[in-house]
Amino acid sequence: MIDLFFIIGNLKRLPRTGWLLRGVASPESIADHSYRVAVMTLILGEELRRRGLELDVDRAVRIALIHDVGEALITDIPLTAQRYLDKGEAERRAISDLLGEEYAELFREYEEGTTVEGRFVKFVDRLEMLLQAEEYRRAGFSNLDEFWGTLEGLRKSEFYPYFRDVVEALEKR
Amino acid sequence: MIDLFFIIGNLKRLPRTGWLLRGVASPESIADHSYRVAVMTLILGEELRRRGLELDVDRAVRIALIHDVGEALITDIPLTAQRYLDKGEAERRAISDLLGEEYAELFREYEEGTTVEGRFVKFVDRLEMLLQAEEYRRAGFSNLDEFWGTLEGLRKSEFYPYFRDVVEALEKR
Amino acid sequence: MIDLFFIIGNLKRLPRTGWLLRGVASPESIADHSYRVAVMTLILGEELRRRGLELDVDRAVRIALIHDVGEALITDIPLTAQRYLDKGEAERRAISDLLGEEYAELFREYEEGTTVEGRFVKFVDRLEMLLQAEEYRRAGFSNLDEFWGTLEGLRKSEFYPYFRDVVEALEKR
Amino acid sequence: MIDLFFIIGNLKRLPRTGWLLRGVASPESIADHSYRVAVMTLILGEELRRRGLELDVDRAVRIALIHDVGEALITDIPLTAQRYLDKGEAERRAISDLLGEEYAELFREYEEGTTVEGRFVKFVDRLEMLLQAEEYRRAGFSNLDEFWGTLEGLRKSEFYPYFRDVVEALEKR
Amino acid sequence: MIDLFFIIGNLKRLPRTGWLLRGVASPESIADHSYRVAVMTLILGEELRRRGLELDVDRAVRIALIHDVGEALITDIPLTAQRYLDKGEAERRAISDLLGEEYAELFREYEEGTTVEGRFVKFVDRLEMLLQAEEYRRAGFSNLDEFWGTLEGLRKSEFYPYFRDVVEALEKR
Amino acid sequence: MIDLFFIIGNLKRLPRTGWLLRGVASPESIADHSYRVAVMTLILGEELRRRGLELDVDRAVRIALIHDVGEALITDIPLTAQRYLDKGEAERRAISDLLGEEYAELFREYEEGTTVEGRFVKFVDRLEMLLQAEEYRRAGFSNLDEFWGTLEGLRKSEFYPYFRDVVEALEKR
Repeated sequence: MIDLFFIIGNLKRLPRTGWLLRGVASPESIADHSYRVAVMTLILGEELRRRGLELDVDRAVRIALIHDVGEALITDIPLTAQRYLDKGEAERRAISDLLGEEYAELFREYEEGTTVEGRFVKFVDRLEMLLQAEEYRRAGFSNLDEFWGTLEGLRKSEFYPYFRDVVEALEKR
Repeated sequence: MIDLFFIIGNLKRLPRTGWLLRGVASPESIADHSYRVAVMTLILGEELRRRGLELDVDRAVRIALIHDVGEALITDIPLTAQRYLDKGEAERRAISDLLGEEYAELFREYEEGTTVEGRFVKFVDRLEMLLQAEEYRRAGFSNLDEFWGTLEGLRKSEFYPYFRDVVEALEKR
Repeated sequence: MIDLFFIIGNLKRLPRTGWLLRGVASPESIADHSYRVAVMTLILGEELRRRGLELDVDRAVRIALIHDVGEALITDIPLTAQRYLDKGEAERRAISDLLGEEYAELFREYEEGTTVEGRFVKFVDRLEMLLQAEEYRRAGFSNLDEFWGTLEGLRKSEFYPYFRDVVEALEKR
Repeated sequence: MIDLFFIIGNLKRLPRTGWLLRGVASPESIADHSYRVAVMTLILGEELRRRGLELDVDRAVRIALIHDVGEALITDIPLTAQRYLDKGEAERRAISDLLGEEYAELFREYEEGTTVEGRFVKFVDRLEMLLQAEEYRRAGFSNLDEFWGTLEGLRKSEFYPYFRDVVEALEKR
Repeated sequence: MIDLFFIIGNLKRLPRTGWLLRGVASPESIADHSYRVAVMTLILGEELRRRGLELDVDRAVRIALIHDVGEALITDIPLTAQRYLDKGEAERRAISDLLGEEYAELFREYEEGTTVEGRFVKFVDRLEMLLQAEEYRRAGFSNLDEFWGTLEGLRKSEFYPYFRDVVEALEKR
Repeated sequence: MIDLFFIIGNLKRLPRTGWLLRGVASPESIADHSYRVAVMTLILGEELRRRGLELDVDRAVRIALIHDVGEALITDIPLTAQRYLDKGEAERRAISDLLGEEYAELFREYEEGTTVEGRFVKFVDRLEMLLQAEEYRRAGFSNLDEFWGTLEGLRKSEFYPYFRDVVEALEKR
């Protein structure tokens, strides 16, 4: 079990490669990203429930915590590589090896959007990436235009009506 | 709400100062640490339940996610400063300002050990720090002896009987 | 005495957190800052004397050298934390423990502005920070607007008439 | 053509992940590695020729220069990932897309060892990695034991008799 | 011979100081730069030959590989120092000590432009620097204006007519 | 005058190359080093006076503050380069250009040891380097053996009798 935690520790050491390729020399780690996704899933999930949406927040938080855990073995393979490799499939198998089938199922909910909790974590995952893009933009980094395309995806999401203000604040950057 | 998430983003940018002071030039962030504490709380918490201990794992995960969130405003003030400043009190007030009284109460469970979930997260928090110390030791860093004193605290914990193997693996380093 | 110098060595390892929080990933250390404050105190102090102001330049240089030395124990606690903690008081006590009452008195001159040398080092401390802000701005970092508010303070200083050209050069950025 | 050079620039920004996973926080880039492989191929290749081995040194240098160029798109996917992904195949297709079939053929010589030049660059690639491991070990990093297994491979190589002294110097570390 | 390779390894650890002085905190290494110069020399050299220019591409690649190798002993002494020191002379003597007179002669071709291959590597060296400047500019760094002066030199080069499109793409930034 | 301070700011951005070459990836800056030399000159200088040695402490502090200021233009050229270049002469001319002849004279006192203050700063400069070596050693870095040779020089210094305990503490590492 201790070896599993050492492997999960890789997520602290591994950079998010998308930023690296755009010239952010010391970008956030995968663990950095996953942490904020999990906290936002908790806070925004509670907000959704207050507004009447049926959502198992704790289940969503669990999905958030493991949604990138396969990258502890696979690393954060960037978009440029994905026409040569099937990253999703590799991550699912890695999660299965690391945490067992139960957690691989949670990952599938996220990947394939088969449950409301899985789709919600995907929404938060993208939103968190945009917040980070905005933070890098404010700090002075540019070359992040490709990321803003993700805003379009957020606007089409079933969760957009609830968080219109957050998404619009990002659009006004 | 978006401003809250930007503030939480500070946890990605802020180093854990204990390592910095001992010469680890690019140490983990506070978010890095909090992420592994949350994942370990989930996995070890499920294990505790399988072994018959009554524990609300999801509640514990929530405590884990917010246990250092006050440091987004306060930063990770190291031990050397704590004879001059009351860090715990400052963090509790910061969490209250950031997330409201409900979450400040969760933090109090952790700080004061008033619930089994709070005490469990404190156990995991220390265990995670020791795993990180061991990872730095393996990587070649030394000067970490003070950290191993924490092992003693783990051995006296109510959760030690369940995770004796993990703690002993660290002792054999 | 050797232990004192190791503690002072912390100032090399500790970042200036204000920059870190605004997204400068590898900012100057506290020692970096203190070094330029001391050199500028020497050069600008000599200039002041040439222009007829009575000032003990060597005394001012000593104040400059120790004005942040308490942060070797306290770290550079940022503005966001200062509604929860009394940083100045903590630093004064830390300097007293490290270097004795005589140096704590020098620090008080700086903190409280009770002597012309103390006030001059405070002027140089702010000016140095603005030079650094300007260097980061030129390098491409943004998000530093809050710092420029400090210009206002410089313009009101008793030393402004002597260094109007330096301050105005910063305003024209 | 300028876009090709920007893509090749990724190799400066991408870390060699093997070191990263073992706790080297700011490891060499892929370009760093490729550079020394190319220089060593030139110098050791000339040495081989002086000793009578038939080898097209310039052809070998070309192979060295492009042997990791596919990683500009694929990144340096570590061993832990390679049971989930076919890295070699992905790199060959990436090289073909970047530089055309002619260079993909050079890469195949390297990957499959079909020519003496291809096998020689593979020998130098491993030797260079061991030199880097030794440099990290001297600097104080540990946790690099897995790398020394590569020495065994070098000893079995057809080029070992020529460079016995270099390999033995590494063994005596 | 192994010691030579360790010395060449310095090129991985040494930053290109021009970027450092302009506020790029973790700039490319000398090896990073040399790697892309060598690859570009290969690709653009082949292109020149296809267009009918007589050029020994392999010889040019050799020059590219060693053109900064003296900096392994000398470091990348910046322009600001060059009114106080003769950098070129120091590098030539260092190359001679490291690799022998034959390679020092190749360096002289580059420094003094006595052969078409030497002049071509100087052209590529400058072009590569401009590509890197453009990459830093895109990433958000500014303060790089001095570098663009180099464009003028490229336009006057005998190789400009062949690579007008590349140079013009840089001018349109 | 503002331009002078920007040039002095280079000392924050420039690494001490000796550490870099031995594998310390993010070493102290020149300003970091100069800062501790200046503070130690103040504290140890006062100690010397208390013990009856005649020394102008403030003058010594001024020498300490400028003893490496020439490196703002020259950079920290390492030992490996000094058989090819005259670093001391270059630094003296640079200081003269930056700060004028008066300060170049102070530098000469340090370089040539013509005054007790100049010799004292040289003693402190070496002592500070050894403290830093010891800090890196404690942090886990090795490969620093060459530095310990400096201890011999300290033992022969006229100031050794006063600071025997500090030097011996370093010897017992």
